[in-house]
Amino acid sequence: MQEVLDRAAHAAREWGATSPGDRAAALDAVAHALDRETGELVALAEWECRLPGDLLRAEVGRTTFQLRSFAEYLRSGAVNGVVIDREDPSWPPGPRPDLRRMLIPLGPVAVFGSTSYPFAFSVAGSDTASALAAGCPVVVKASHSYPDLADRTAEIVEEVLPKGVFALVHGQRRARQLVLDPRIKAVAFIGSSRVGRELHHLVATRPEPIPFYGGFGSVNPVFVTKRAAELRGSEIARGFARALGKQSGQLCTKPGLLVVPEGFAGDVADEVRALRAEPLFNKLVAKRYETGVEALTAFLDVLVEGGSGAGGHAPTLLRTTAADVLAGHDEALSECFGPVSVVATYRDSHELLELAAALPGQLTVTVHGTAHGEDDDVLPDLIGELTGRAGRIVWNQWPNDIATTPAMHHGGPWPATTSPFHTSVGVRAVERFQRPVVFQGFPSHFLPEVLADER
Amino acid sequence: MQEVLDRAAHAAREWGATSPGDRAAALDAVAHALDRETGELVALAEWECRLPGDLLRAEVGRTTFQLRSFAEYLRSGAVNGVVIDREDPSWPPGPRPDLRRMLIPLGPVAVFGSTSYPFAFSVAGSDTASALAAGCPVVVKASHSYPDLADRTAEIVEEVLPKGVFALVHGQRRARQLVLDPRIKAVAFIGSSRVGRELHHLVATRPEPIPFYGGFGSVNPVFVTKRAAELRGSEIARGFARALGKQSGQLCTKPGLLVVPEGFAGDVADEVRALRAEPLFNKLVAKRYETGVEALTAFLDVLVEGGSGAGGHAPTLLRTTAADVLAGHDEALSECFGPVSVVATYRDSHELLELAAALPGQLTVTVHGTAHGEDDDVLPDLIGELTGRAGRIVWNQWPNDIATTPAMHHGGPWPATTSPFHTSVGVRAVERFQRPVVFQGFPSHFLPEVLADER
Repeated sequence: MQEVLDRAAHAAREWGATSPGDRAAALDAVAHALDRETGELVALAEWECRLPGDLLRAEVGRTTFQLRSFAEYLRSGAVNGVVIDREDPSWPPGPRPDLRRMLIPLGPVAVFGSTSYPFAFSVAGSDTASALAAGCPVVVKASHSYPDLADRTAEIVEEVLPKGVFALVHGQRRARQLVLDPRIKAVAFIGSSRVGRELHHLVATRPEPIPFYGGFGSVNPVFVTKRAAELRGSEIARGFARALGKQSGQLCTKPGLLVVPEGFAGDVADEVRALRAEPLFNKLVAKRYETGVEALTAFLDVLVEGGSGAGGHAPTLLRTTAADVLAGHDEALSECFGPVSVVATYRDSHELLELAAALPGQLTVTVHGTAHGEDDDVLPDLIGELTGRAGRIVWNQWPNDIATTPAMHHGGPWPATTSPFHTSVGVRAVERFQRPVVFQGFPSHFLPEVLADER
Repeated sequence: MQEVLDRAAHAAREWGATSPGDRAAALDAVAHALDRETGELVALAEWECRLPGDLLRAEVGRTTFQLRSFAEYLRSGAVNGVVIDREDPSWPPGPRPDLRRMLIPLGPVAVFGSTSYPFAFSVAGSDTASALAAGCPVVVKASHSYPDLADRTAEIVEEVLPKGVFALVHGQRRARQLVLDPRIKAVAFIGSSRVGRELHHLVATRPEPIPFYGGFGSVNPVFVTKRAAELRGSEIARGFARALGKQSGQLCTKPGLLVVPEGFAGDVADEVRALRAEPLFNKLVAKRYETGVEALTAFLDVLVEGGSGAGGHAPTLLRTTAADVLAGHDEALSECFGPVSVVATYRDSHELLELAAALPGQLTVTVHGTAHGEDDDVLPDLIGELTGRAGRIVWNQWPNDIATTPAMHHGGPWPATTSPFHTSVGVRAVERFQRPVVFQGFPSHFLPEVLADER
């Protein structure tokens, strides 16, 4: 462990000083190596993560796409955040010296692999790719859910990158060591809020504060207007059931709360009842899920009792009312990882808006409404309220998929994440691992290449 | 107080929803009003801050320039951080929905006025201007050093802005209330690390974490190479003395540590001895300064004993060696606000580099060297080391002035500030008070104007 951290600290200066083009080539090489080994990796993942091969293959594709997107971003030059102001003796508030700003890497980054995405948010996932792109060495803490897959992926990555730039460690003890070590300059975590908050508190005890980018989860509420329920009720119920069941509810973007007008819960229940049982990732996840559902059913009515059998766990649907939640019975506002969701019925748009205003910070919120003026008594206020409470707001679609694209913002206000300013998906994820520095009055030959005048 | 916060919370939605053009017009109006009242404001400040009228008049000019720069930035559109990715069914990792990202304001911001800059970092200073530009209402806590000036400035600002968007409060009790109140969504502080850390800890006890942007201070070390001392020794000594004495050393960018080759300290002492006594801001600042110097002289040799008299305090120069600092006597690495600085002599470039590597995070570091290859045994390593330890690195100039210009980064790694990512000067200061949100699949008429398709 000490050796791993020493090597990372040692590699930081050299890797940080590589040209963006060189780092782009390295990321491309990682993507290429993963592409080549997709067959073996998917086979390992099928066995360890109990996910279907097609889904896993698509996730490897997403992972290599991410790596190549960061490579492209590096080659575009935008990643350096360069701003140059030349000397100007007549600058209004006083003579201005030559000032050249750029972004530099923070140093070694600890990345925690997520259980839900064994490729895209794991060993060679978005956090790793963005930290490497920033010029930071990476030490990944493997998810306990797929140790062999993590090891094999790490082997492939390590082989391609310069020595010390990448390493993998296992185990909770090492996780704690990692986030407390002075050589680590930032932590990226995607996972449960239980583990995440523990690590966050640990990081807060460091003498030198460092950023902790924790992406936890949220209930990702879906609001359905009266008119939308009337016009597209069965379509919405079907879409919701599909979104709930996707990857057996084991996604941080699973809709865990459906807010509907009274009288609509039955349609939803029918659709959820039709979903089949599927295996959860592993026994630990299943155990936590069962405990979570048990806790919820102590407070909420059961509409669909999922139950479990040889095939896995079938989705569970619970029920409450907006009035109950507003009266303080807000169990439905806490995430339970796995195939369970809560339907909350509202009586009128006043209650709908009150519920929206009671939400804690979310990764996503979704609105199903009608676009042509029929919901105008409620929609502008609802959208306004929800915009202040989420990182992404979705219209007449479902929140599960997180597109890898520059406009994506995967994040959100506390308690969904620990930093509402940052995204863990898309090229801007790099910014989490960079800070600005400005050079004043330097001759070109002492400046980093991206700041120097052309020679 | 409760009323002030209620009004700010109430104003947040409306002010946040104003168009960038409207906010630009409001900032221009504030600048115009301050311009008009410059005479009265400067007279008040001369009396309360004991600073020369010329300097104060220039600072009002800087303040109105800042306000107008933010207005210009608002009109440029860049402030919205818009990224639009249209729907793309053939996007490689999977069909991409229409995604439109923008930056939205955090909500009411608490701003702490600095003692050093009664205009530029105070009631209508950079923090206030950037928060207003972001769309956040502002509650300023006045510096205790100039209550009347703060009140008069606030009157002028309040008259121009919509009700609730701006308010001023006084006193330490209110300061604590302010940073703990759930209606406040961010805090900007420029001042002493003693007060700053107290507030930072207080903010950390909130149930909902909010950003605390603390700009404290640093020793802003200046490194002089052997060759530079030989070639331009007296020029450097003179420049240093002027930089130390500027505004009687009461600047967060005062060079508090001069690292020079052995044999050069005498020249520096002669220049510092020639500086005249000047008044400090007030008795409290003077008292803290005297206590600070006393503490330093317990460990360090006195080269120039400043002393104080009717005219104020003359600069004090202390002395240590790089070897002593590296042996753990690192008193010289802590800031003492006011006209005092330490000269540290080094024997060879190895010691010079070791000292650079021992520095805590700084707002600025400065290098005086020669550009034409004569210092090449030490400069590349020195510049590399210092780049990792400061927000701004200055070449053959002095660090005091902080140009208001887009490339400026006024910030730096811990412990100089609480967030190395952000600047409190220049248009990017706005980013501290904004967070991203992305709209997925929305019809144009529900989108904020800056995201909508043209109609």
